[in-house]
Amino acid sequence: MKSSPSAISLQPEKSPANVSTKPWNVVRSDKNPIITVKNVKPSRPGWKVEYVMNAGCHRVGAEVFLLLRVAETPLPDKDPNIFLAPYFSEKHGEVLFRRLEKNDPLNDFRDSRFVLRYDDKGKEVLRVLTSISHLRLARSRDGINFTVEEKPALYPSNKYEEFGIEDPRITYIADDGFYYINYSACASLGVTTNLARTKDWKTYERLGCIFTPDNKDVCIFPRKINGKYYAMCRPASAEYRRREIWISESPDLISWGNHKLLMEVNTNDWDGGRIGCSAVPFETDKGWVEIYHAADTTHRYCLGVAILDRDNPTKVIAKGKAPLMEPETDYEKYGFFGNVIFNCGVLCEDGIIKIYYGAADTCMGYAEVPLQEVLDFVLKG
Amino acid sequence: MKSSPSAISLQPEKSPANVSTKPWNVVRSDKNPIITVKNVKPSRPGWKVEYVMNAGCHRVGAEVFLLLRVAETPLPDKDPNIFLAPYFSEKHGEVLFRRLEKNDPLNDFRDSRFVLRYDDKGKEVLRVLTSISHLRLARSRDGINFTVEEKPALYPSNKYEEFGIEDPRITYIADDGFYYINYSACASLGVTTNLARTKDWKTYERLGCIFTPDNKDVCIFPRKINGKYYAMCRPASAEYRRREIWISESPDLISWGNHKLLMEVNTNDWDGGRIGCSAVPFETDKGWVEIYHAADTTHRYCLGVAILDRDNPTKVIAKGKAPLMEPETDYEKYGFFGNVIFNCGVLCEDGIIKIYYGAADTCMGYAEVPLQEVLDFVLKG
Repeated sequence: MKSSPSAISLQPEKSPANVSTKPWNVVRSDKNPIITVKNVKPSRPGWKVEYVMNAGCHRVGAEVFLLLRVAETPLPDKDPNIFLAPYFSEKHGEVLFRRLEKNDPLNDFRDSRFVLRYDDKGKEVLRVLTSISHLRLARSRDGINFTVEEKPALYPSNKYEEFGIEDPRITYIADDGFYYINYSACASLGVTTNLARTKDWKTYERLGCIFTPDNKDVCIFPRKINGKYYAMCRPASAEYRRREIWISESPDLISWGNHKLLMEVNTNDWDGGRIGCSAVPFETDKGWVEIYHAADTTHRYCLGVAILDRDNPTKVIAKGKAPLMEPETDYEKYGFFGNVIFNCGVLCEDGIIKIYYGAADTCMGYAEVPLQEVLDFVLKG
Repeated sequence: MKSSPSAISLQPEKSPANVSTKPWNVVRSDKNPIITVKNVKPSRPGWKVEYVMNAGCHRVGAEVFLLLRVAETPLPDKDPNIFLAPYFSEKHGEVLFRRLEKNDPLNDFRDSRFVLRYDDKGKEVLRVLTSISHLRLARSRDGINFTVEEKPALYPSNKYEEFGIEDPRITYIADDGFYYINYSACASLGVTTNLARTKDWKTYERLGCIFTPDNKDVCIFPRKINGKYYAMCRPASAEYRRREIWISESPDLISWGNHKLLMEVNTNDWDGGRIGCSAVPFETDKGWVEIYHAADTTHRYCLGVAILDRDNPTKVIAKGKAPLMEPETDYEKYGFFGNVIFNCGVLCEDGIIKIYYGAADTCMGYAEVPLQEVLDFVLKG
């Protein structure tokens, strides 16, 4: 028998931030974090799972499927001065690692997410990630208690995926019955978005690179609108340093064009640093609801809500002025990269928006908010 | 009567670089530079043409058409301390300018191409170009002596074109009889590639943005190959700072996908800084010939040659190890941005590659080289 995840009893956080001054009553699960590294086995011997986060999600029959981003590192070297930086080697066809000396002053370990190396003139000559991510399926009947598969669903496998594959989004396209999975492919040749698809969640067909460097955080709309597919994306301008949400059209999900800037940052606010689409949008009679992520200039990541025109999603009808969620709990404030709430998918079922989100780039959280509250607040402007 | 441009008598430059040690005998026109600012009227009163360069080219009937990049500035302010930085204002629907104080230490005028402004903490808060470019048609019956039209063919007209439109490429598509013109659209929201088309060279239809920021130097192949259109492009990675040539597919010239890295820089060589496609490729029985631009780490721009597989242009058959052309003459070495040869188009007629190129970001040069010499050198490579 199908149990409705919305029937799970959720307790409001005791944080003072969660009281009635908020425009919406977002309730975190009292089981949070619902998935941590303790729930995820390393993909192979000699490796360690560092964190699990930023899952795409979809309902598949009676189950909720999460496609987790699992970040791994090689077990530490015997020499405590050596850091092992993993990467996929196209030449060798497998994941290897570089040995970097921690006490070499030309190596820069200050950001937990990557290591930089400079030459003796101060020029950056190497940028590698400190971990390598793959995508792993987790399944649940109640939407809270997940069983994580032992083997990766998708693993880095070509030069575009040198530093790992991250932050998947899942879009079901009824036209052909495939679940389309797009993800960020990180490599020294740039950050691209790659596409794959599956029907059975056992075999995955890779469909190549759908956006040129650097472009990530792509969300494909779940149906054609006026004869075209649409996707939001987050190009990064090398020259002008902007990171905002664009929207693109496609006849076939592979080729994308007619790109337009959709939403800009708000200077000096919670969304003043960068914004990107997060959840695959879902349709309501008021328009497409997009739950996006936004960071301020201190890299504190919140979720925001926008509503796009149902027949013309290049038109933003309304944007919520306050963040839908911001880092408040310890597991959101402290971790591999703290003060981060980042999501790659939601479900909207029985009038409830169910948010699966990465917390502090470390673990997975879950929260619920009534759809009507969100629509009311955003539309009243 | 049609006069063949290849019949024009060209004199070898007297530069010692142009003697037989070169793998190919590139001969510059003794009329060089063939187009300078003296040949181009300002697009409107109160403005000055600063330089003319980087023309797309195509034969149209008995004529050679160049689509020039014409860069203009407002006439100087009465106050010599004021610099006027032009931009297209979408709000006002016209080109306006910012007033920037030259002696303000927070304004940085060191690069001739743009002005930077910093806040008092040293963070870049403004990046504007020092001139604004539009596209202007020039026509010639002999391929050397051009008449430049008085009005722009395409002029900045939307927010994606805020800082001007640059470096056009022209591809004639026999399927629909249109000349497709793609060009770099510069704006504070990023550098994109926009597409337009014309049949009569009097009316131009704009088709929107075909590559997300930052992506420029797009060259569309002139026919479908195995049922798909192809284009080379030059994405810039904000994270990894790479600027190299990629290749993409399209069903319709508007939407592009299945992007692949095509050619990389060569470390510590004439093409060790950045490379980008330049000329729309032309077809030979040995493959597609691509004349591209390449800069070393000092920003010295040369032309290079690559040959791509005729049936699968994602495959590089051969690359010339030496540059086809490098800055040698005074008009190539000195100018708005010196030591630059940069082209956006060639003709290949009667066994001669006819190269129309921007010299020192200032004027237009012309040179010829026998196709067979180029093929022989590159293929033996």
